[in-house]
Amino acid sequence: MQKILNINITVIGLGLIGGSYAMAFKEINNGHVWGVDTNENTLKKAAHMKIIDEGYCDSSAHIPIEKSDVIIIAVYPQAAVNIIEKNAKSFKKEAIITDVLGIKGNNINIIQSILNGYDVEFIGGHPMAGKESSGFEYASKDIFKGANYILTPTEKNKKTTIDYMEDLIRAIGFENISIVTPEKHDKLIAVTSQLPHVIALSLINSKGVDKNIKNFVGGSFKDESRVASINPELWCELFLSNKDNLLKSIDEFQESIADIKEAIENDDSERLKTIMKNAAVKKGELN
Amino acid sequence: MQKILNINITVIGLGLIGGSYAMAFKEINNGHVWGVDTNENTLKKAAHMKIIDEGYCDSSAHIPIEKSDVIIIAVYPQAAVNIIEKNAKSFKKEAIITDVLGIKGNNINIIQSILNGYDVEFIGGHPMAGKESSGFEYASKDIFKGANYILTPTEKNKKTTIDYMEDLIRAIGFENISIVTPEKHDKLIAVTSQLPHVIALSLINSKGVDKNIKNFVGGSFKDESRVASINPELWCELFLSNKDNLLKSIDEFQESIADIKEAIENDDSERLKTIMKNAAVKKGELN
Repeated sequence: MQKILNINITVIGLGLIGGSYAMAFKEINNGHVWGVDTNENTLKKAAHMKIIDEGYCDSSAHIPIEKSDVIIIAVYPQAAVNIIEKNAKSFKKEAIITDVLGIKGNNINIIQSILNGYDVEFIGGHPMAGKESSGFEYASKDIFKGANYILTPTEKNKKTTIDYMEDLIRAIGFENISIVTPEKHDKLIAVTSQLPHVIALSLINSKGVDKNIKNFVGGSFKDESRVASINPELWCELFLSNKDNLLKSIDEFQESIADIKEAIENDDSERLKTIMKNAAVKKGELN
Repeated sequence: MQKILNINITVIGLGLIGGSYAMAFKEINNGHVWGVDTNENTLKKAAHMKIIDEGYCDSSAHIPIEKSDVIIIAVYPQAAVNIIEKNAKSFKKEAIITDVLGIKGNNINIIQSILNGYDVEFIGGHPMAGKESSGFEYASKDIFKGANYILTPTEKNKKTTIDYMEDLIRAIGFENISIVTPEKHDKLIAVTSQLPHVIALSLINSKGVDKNIKNFVGGSFKDESRVASINPELWCELFLSNKDNLLKSIDEFQESIADIKEAIENDDSERLKTIMKNAAVKKGELN
């Protein structure tokens, strides 16, 4: 692919998502791509794979940060705030900083407050891409191809910055880029991502599910339990920081499953068929 | 692929599964593969694609049946019983008849009773393969590759017939072949297939899910709603004919999701992390 960018980029946190960002940007960027991580082995691996030009440990993050036009923070919510706080004075003038977190909640307000007065801009971003396994060894630039991406600007973000981010994100393969407020983002994500994770966990933890069913599962069970193995630290933080929205989406799902259960209990085949037909129509609208 | 069979096979019902069977057997069988369907267009298409040697409408099904060593019935539960009843006298001596139904329940007893006294053998089979769309146009022999298959013999089936079916099924790509009673099959399937379909329907029919969330869904939502568009007639029959088992599996899932909900309500991060860790372990055992 022809290189189309000419900027310096630092990716902080080379996990599944951060590692994938480094790979994707390295391919299209003539400028530098630097990596920051707490794990020295990961930094060595990433440098060896030539997806970063150089790796820096946490305490020396300021070195690449001072020279970077774009900084992608791909770490846990609280860690992201800490990194911003620690490096607030180090960011290059007019740098754009973004994150990849699944929940925006208060984090964006806190970060933008910290950066108030500095000539840099933080804009929230959420790549709707992932894998059932976490960590750098699963990173792949292909996970972004055709995926959805959500930008969550606030009134502190300039129109030019929003446009710039859109171009940047599209360049590495994202297709549908939506722009919503952080609050709206968290409401939507409770339904479209957090609820599916709660469902996968609940399915796998169901009493009837154990290793004896292994040879009896079909595609539906495999698909619905794919994300049941998640990083407990990260997802616990994500769930609890979006508590009200998530509880609402669970409630609504519980009403929906209770509907089907009642129809089955009553041998109400007309009601059951109506439920199935409605689902087919709604699913069609989502394709 | 080298042809390894030399028998005559009739597939009754050229939908997604029946069509896929015809394709798969045509490739490895030197003998004839005939198709029976109520839809003449489907028969013409299948003959044109050379996945059947000839097509027969329902009322002339006896013509290929009289000459077939193996008959695969890939239609709805009640229709399967009707076909057996109508053609009981037509089956070739020592023919093996099987089905593909997702629920075995009483159907097998009824069919084996009808065939009592005839020199043919019915043995239940369940290919754990499918697609999110039904109908002949989606048929593909590839859906069987590496998939699970369940044979549900009763005391009326000979050991040689069970072995023969195993070989037949393995030849078209199925990998794990399990042998259980029809009763045990229905208990397992309530958890591994019917519950996931109930979940997908419930997710899509949740109040918060509408076309406005389209650009905000990630892989987890897509995977978990994949099977939400199903054939209402067929699945209503399957759900209600396995009512007790299915209700039990729904109950157990509801307990499981209530657990997570309670942990979130109580901000109980330790409990939440334990739930996530348990799920990861259980998921690992299923791989």
